[in-house]
Amino acid sequence: MIRKVTNAAAAEGLPLAVYGTIIHSVTPQDVEILENGLLVVGKDGKITSLDKDVQPSQIDEFLSRYGLDRSSPSVKVLERGQFLIPGFIDTHNHAPQWTQRGTGRGKEIMEWLNKTTFPHEARFEDPEYARKTYAACVDGFLKQGVTTASYYGSLHGEATKILADICLEKGQRAFVGKCNMNRNAPDYYRDASAEESIRVTEEFIAYAREIDPEASLVTPILTPRFAVACDADVLSGLGKIAAKNPDLPIQTHFNETVQEMEITKSLFPEFEYEADLYEHFGLLNRRSILAHCIYMNEYEMGRLKTLDCGVAHCPVSNTTSGNFGTAPVREYLRRGIKVGLGTDSGGGYSSSIIDAMRQAFVVSKAKAWATEGREPALTHNEMFYLATLGGAKVCCLEDKVGTFAVGKEFDALEIRTIGKDAGVITMVEDIDTTVDMFEKFIMTGDDRNIARVYVKGRCVKS
Amino acid sequence: MIRKVTNAAAAEGLPLAVYGTIIHSVTPQDVEILENGLLVVGKDGKITSLDKDVQPSQIDEFLSRYGLDRSSPSVKVLERGQFLIPGFIDTHNHAPQWTQRGTGRGKEIMEWLNKTTFPHEARFEDPEYARKTYAACVDGFLKQGVTTASYYGSLHGEATKILADICLEKGQRAFVGKCNMNRNAPDYYRDASAEESIRVTEEFIAYAREIDPEASLVTPILTPRFAVACDADVLSGLGKIAAKNPDLPIQTHFNETVQEMEITKSLFPEFEYEADLYEHFGLLNRRSILAHCIYMNEYEMGRLKTLDCGVAHCPVSNTTSGNFGTAPVREYLRRGIKVGLGTDSGGGYSSSIIDAMRQAFVVSKAKAWATEGREPALTHNEMFYLATLGGAKVCCLEDKVGTFAVGKEFDALEIRTIGKDAGVITMVEDIDTTVDMFEKFIMTGDDRNIARVYVKGRCVKS
Repeated sequence: MIRKVTNAAAAEGLPLAVYGTIIHSVTPQDVEILENGLLVVGKDGKITSLDKDVQPSQIDEFLSRYGLDRSSPSVKVLERGQFLIPGFIDTHNHAPQWTQRGTGRGKEIMEWLNKTTFPHEARFEDPEYARKTYAACVDGFLKQGVTTASYYGSLHGEATKILADICLEKGQRAFVGKCNMNRNAPDYYRDASAEESIRVTEEFIAYAREIDPEASLVTPILTPRFAVACDADVLSGLGKIAAKNPDLPIQTHFNETVQEMEITKSLFPEFEYEADLYEHFGLLNRRSILAHCIYMNEYEMGRLKTLDCGVAHCPVSNTTSGNFGTAPVREYLRRGIKVGLGTDSGGGYSSSIIDAMRQAFVVSKAKAWATEGREPALTHNEMFYLATLGGAKVCCLEDKVGTFAVGKEFDALEIRTIGKDAGVITMVEDIDTTVDMFEKFIMTGDDRNIARVYVKGRCVKS
Repeated sequence: MIRKVTNAAAAEGLPLAVYGTIIHSVTPQDVEILENGLLVVGKDGKITSLDKDVQPSQIDEFLSRYGLDRSSPSVKVLERGQFLIPGFIDTHNHAPQWTQRGTGRGKEIMEWLNKTTFPHEARFEDPEYARKTYAACVDGFLKQGVTTASYYGSLHGEATKILADICLEKGQRAFVGKCNMNRNAPDYYRDASAEESIRVTEEFIAYAREIDPEASLVTPILTPRFAVACDADVLSGLGKIAAKNPDLPIQTHFNETVQEMEITKSLFPEFEYEADLYEHFGLLNRRSILAHCIYMNEYEMGRLKTLDCGVAHCPVSNTTSGNFGTAPVREYLRRGIKVGLGTDSGGGYSSSIIDAMRQAFVVSKAKAWATEGREPALTHNEMFYLATLGGAKVCCLEDKVGTFAVGKEFDALEIRTIGKDAGVITMVEDIDTTVDMFEKFIMTGDDRNIARVYVKGRCVKS
């Protein structure tokens, strides 16, 4: 089943305008809070204007400039306690692990893969199961405000095509990858050969480009699981695809656990570091998304910076799996290495980027403790940056999404912190400032605080 | 306004029976899972029977033995994905901080008290504000399955009475304490004198005993904020009340942060340790609930064990405040020191014991890392124990609640992990065992997975 994107579908509800409090990152340290912003989105789903300091008495005048008026259902005036933020970007997660979230915590990585993960992923051989489960997965992420996700699929070509179809159909911006893995995995769940692994990958890339030729939403991504599971033929085969297709993003797991690093070293003794290994096979460039990056020395940080690779920081899984991993995020920010957040769902028990923001804070507190304050903890603004603009940069999508700059596509969340629909949890008071409400959302919010979700101007949750 | 407990109110919906999967702790390490349990609760809210291995074909026969039949609305047959667990026990939280959750994270304790907390707590001078806010607080905790809470109130006698009224009215089992604090706090929020502090405390105790003479739900608790905020007159005055009333529980903050410990030492240089200080004033006994207990040496752990004090472990606040605190919970369990969980809401950003279980796991992973594996991380069973039976022991309520032993009062949660009402988050599959569902609930659940909440047999959430 091939679904091409149609502009008609995207144009529904457009143009639209939102008036009220608008918040987005400017730098890792600074957010811009527009208390009286007016944002207009054109028929193509792109932001056509963002006016600041528009007083309530001026709303009608401004709207009329843009050919809109307040009576239109696509004009939304936010109330106190509501604000607009960019959509969340999940730079690392595993779609076929959706159903295993919460199980297997505390296991070392190879035991966890063999006992918990591979049996789950193997079920995606069945297209019907894949369709049902991926639909629940994409719905679940959209409901939680993930407007862009970088998905590892299973090893199955057919199931991965289905995942791409579903992202397109439901309107989620997504990188989708057929997972490559031809060794150190059980017979029942392993690519039959390096050739087969590469063939299925190429076929999937062709399919993804057919259903979404402009990559308006869905982009195929090269997805070697990690060097433990890929032999040199698979890695070099993928490197050749990358060389021929410089627009293709690439993702893998990188310096995640001590066990994984030791096995990698035993399999590829010729490489001192994982950075050397993946670079050798042509898999490190500005489009590479490296998940975890916990155990990093000066040399490898230097390589990542030089090659402009992005880091997917996954604090939820890093603090609950075999190791207790504290990635040096403060150091990445200081050096200007691109870094965003990943749920790593289902290695991460949570599929929420809000949880990931909070846990990134916890990890940064642990790091501050372990370094006796030399690496200070993250601020709220930094957590928010990682979840939005930082993630966009990791995905090389910062020209398209991540902030509300004019010309970008409208991927946004309408947040509510007051009212009975806002969940039991968040409690906003009369004395709270916008900054208080913003902090409360980050530290106490869940999907119930996300009233609406837009991707490229299309409302995908309301 | 004085409300006395009436047996009529408690008896509504009773007797009741629940058939299906029933899970509770037996030891810190072991849970008992009854796949076909039948639990019956009498008119007094106490568990009258718990039958194991009752086959579906035998349900009617068993019910008839207890004078019940399946057509009664108070007979509930649980389906797959549903199970019954004991209610959660929150051994440490601050009711007047309900509205500040999520703000002030990362600050050192004295700055956090002065800038974030005291301004919030001071608002409870207004009884109307107290009534409205405490109603939201108690509703919020009940919705999240907290059937027993040990509350710090504000310093105000009137507001604290209102909190006791509300707990009784809404049916939450609670320890409620007027907070004592006559120094190191701003003029606008400080007990006027030691005498006033003690007088208001005695008056509140009398009130609580009047509205609930049997302490069927509400028990007054002595609540010196901490030695930093209480001079020797207040501490000795409270010690005298404790001596005269050996049934009264006592709560305070204990070895929470380095800053707090240094200030305590400067105020009471005659005491080497906080254990000596609080013991000297007669405030350490088996009914003492000591929040945090992070920085503990051999000597102080020995005192806690000897005096049989309980520890309220508060991992959510400990990992997000000034310090990154990793309480030695594994060591407490090993030594047989009583330990339960506290949300520490609003120092803790979350008011959910499910979040506290997960964060206790994270803290235990950090501790395992910091001790190079000498203090292994908690298991799921241990997290669950801390949230239920462990907390009951800390509160000296283990003869009343914490498990489903016959004769105990029925404080319970009906958990659902399947169906659209079960939240977006939890995802249970056909292949999942009861243990899988139990783990998924602990690691991914939220209040939406809690379908019903019972306290003393009364349904307080449905």
